[in-house]
Amino acid sequence: MFKAEIKSETLKGLVNIISTLIDEVKFAIDPEGMTLKAVDPAHVAMIELKVGNKAFESYSANSAEIGLDLDKVKMVLKLAVPGDIISMEQDENKGRFIFRIGNITRSMNLVDTSSMSDPKVPQLELSSNAVILVDQLQRGIRAAESISDHISLRADPEFFELSCEGDTDDARLRLESSELESLSVPSEVHSLFPLDYFSNLVKAIPAGTKVRIELDSDYPVKLVFGLANGEANVVYFLAPRIESD
Amino acid sequence: MFKAEIKSETLKGLVNIISTLIDEVKFAIDPEGMTLKAVDPAHVAMIELKVGNKAFESYSANSAEIGLDLDKVKMVLKLAVPGDIISMEQDENKGRFIFRIGNITRSMNLVDTSSMSDPKVPQLELSSNAVILVDQLQRGIRAAESISDHISLRADPEFFELSCEGDTDDARLRLESSELESLSVPSEVHSLFPLDYFSNLVKAIPAGTKVRIELDSDYPVKLVFGLANGEANVVYFLAPRIESD
Amino acid sequence: MFKAEIKSETLKGLVNIISTLIDEVKFAIDPEGMTLKAVDPAHVAMIELKVGNKAFESYSANSAEIGLDLDKVKMVLKLAVPGDIISMEQDENKGRFIFRIGNITRSMNLVDTSSMSDPKVPQLELSSNAVILVDQLQRGIRAAESISDHISLRADPEFFELSCEGDTDDARLRLESSELESLSVPSEVHSLFPLDYFSNLVKAIPAGTKVRIELDSDYPVKLVFGLANGEANVVYFLAPRIESD
Repeated sequence: MFKAEIKSETLKGLVNIISTLIDEVKFAIDPEGMTLKAVDPAHVAMIELKVGNKAFESYSANSAEIGLDLDKVKMVLKLAVPGDIISMEQDENKGRFIFRIGNITRSMNLVDTSSMSDPKVPQLELSSNAVILVDQLQRGIRAAESISDHISLRADPEFFELSCEGDTDDARLRLESSELESLSVPSEVHSLFPLDYFSNLVKAIPAGTKVRIELDSDYPVKLVFGLANGEANVVYFLAPRIESD
Repeated sequence: MFKAEIKSETLKGLVNIISTLIDEVKFAIDPEGMTLKAVDPAHVAMIELKVGNKAFESYSANSAEIGLDLDKVKMVLKLAVPGDIISMEQDENKGRFIFRIGNITRSMNLVDTSSMSDPKVPQLELSSNAVILVDQLQRGIRAAESISDHISLRADPEFFELSCEGDTDDARLRLESSELESLSVPSEVHSLFPLDYFSNLVKAIPAGTKVRIELDSDYPVKLVFGLANGEANVVYFLAPRIESD
Repeated sequence: MFKAEIKSETLKGLVNIISTLIDEVKFAIDPEGMTLKAVDPAHVAMIELKVGNKAFESYSANSAEIGLDLDKVKMVLKLAVPGDIISMEQDENKGRFIFRIGNITRSMNLVDTSSMSDPKVPQLELSSNAVILVDQLQRGIRAAESISDHISLRADPEFFELSCEGDTDDARLRLESSELESLSVPSEVHSLFPLDYFSNLVKAIPAGTKVRIELDSDYPVKLVFGLANGEANVVYFLAPRIESD
């Protein structure tokens, strides 16, 4: 059993983040909230999203798994205007999921979750971390686009740097520790990541969000940030591109 | 002879409606105003538009027929800004139609109307009718899109319903009689219509317009609404898709 | 040596004009400012742009030539918001040009200028001229589009006229001398020009700019206007299409 109401802006924020990685998702539901763990088809990135029941206007659920096609959920979101409350309900008899916005009802078949894996979230101890306003990252990414397929993240005791190097062009965003929310780097670390994954995720994060970036040399990067006024939490891992010498 | 001035917004509203159905049109002109009757190439829908001379800022005409290419008229409308007055004139000697907006003159050949038919407007007695704010219909249509090629209209003594059913998805807008401007239904009626025609028309109707929908089971639907502050009147018929059992 | 700061809006205004004609440019730099002379690949139009050092927020340069790819400069401009100051610097050792906006650094290889010609600016005595607000020209061009490939400019002692004639359609913008900033025409002159060149240039000129048009029959048209609050000056020549009888 699952029945809940959520602000359209809140649902939109969650869907925007998840759909940078996958289209069909499996939510694990229980009375405390929803959890999603997913890996992209190429196994380059992983997301773990926890949405507490306080992110909802109302919430009532037993333990269950719900499979949804996010492309269809996006179409539902287009029917809402800011301020709308979207009600959601699982129809267990018909195997359907029902959205309601005002006098509109939109129902869709649940997606079969039996073949969806449960990825294991890696336990990584990364030496360095910085907390950065996402707006800064978004500017850096716009500068990097069309220069190279990869983006370099570098953390130094004094600064955090995002850069892209092509044959004829460079782009670089350098943030001194005074421009960061926090910076903790014992000694310089540096890794290279696929620009498209990093860019799609960062662009989907709402302006004003503070993102914690955990980094080490030639390790995955871990990004942690809140959504839904802190009632939802995202942990995102992106595999590095190991440079051969 | 035809010479008139009209507000650009008014002309745009009329052209938007007609061009959902046809590109080349024949207007019958007389001192009282303009009338257009047209059927789409596939003979699925018909429109009858009457524009009284009070919809114009100035108007002077003898009886005549004028053929216009609406794609070109749309290009003229793009030259105007809200508040502009567009003057229109027939140049009978040169077989041209002349638009003027401020110091811009745009003239175009009249379209030959000799091969354009004069469709007969059907006289239908439909059992049920509802008057609905077009904004509601527009929301319902947005919900229905990409689910099926057909849309179902259902009128009941208590409610009016617009719905779309696909293999895996449903969308439904249900308006209780209290949410309608009026509802008069002796007993439930229901018909199925091509979504694209219905959608194109409804989207072209200006927000805030009240639309009268006349409906019966397996009959054409008739939509009636005003434009140009009530000085123009549209009657639109759309043929049903008869469901075979 | 070249090092300067400029408002992003000012740089954008200059780039928009030049890039209607060419993508790769050569600027001649000296302590007084920058000069660009360029002909389009088809040798139909020529531009001469002079940017005085007062157009910059700060400016310091020796005599030099700098080759830039404007498509890349446009990408840099997209990183700026109105009010941003863009700093520019030539790195002579690496053969690079460096843009900085806030904490973003974007560097690119200089373009080789050795094969770029130095077009000679023609000295033409054209009999007639008019000074016109560019907004009027922009409206006239929008009316002319999709009617013909050529646009006619006509100056008369009483009016200036821009028109386009197709097989079935005409468009005309007629500006009486009272609607112009100034008009000096001894006797009627008239020439025909390629619409795409004229249109691309006129659309790139900022609204509110006064453009001086110098015209004669079957001669190039010369357009002169200021940018950057008058600290930059553009002279643009466009070859006529000579009508054969």
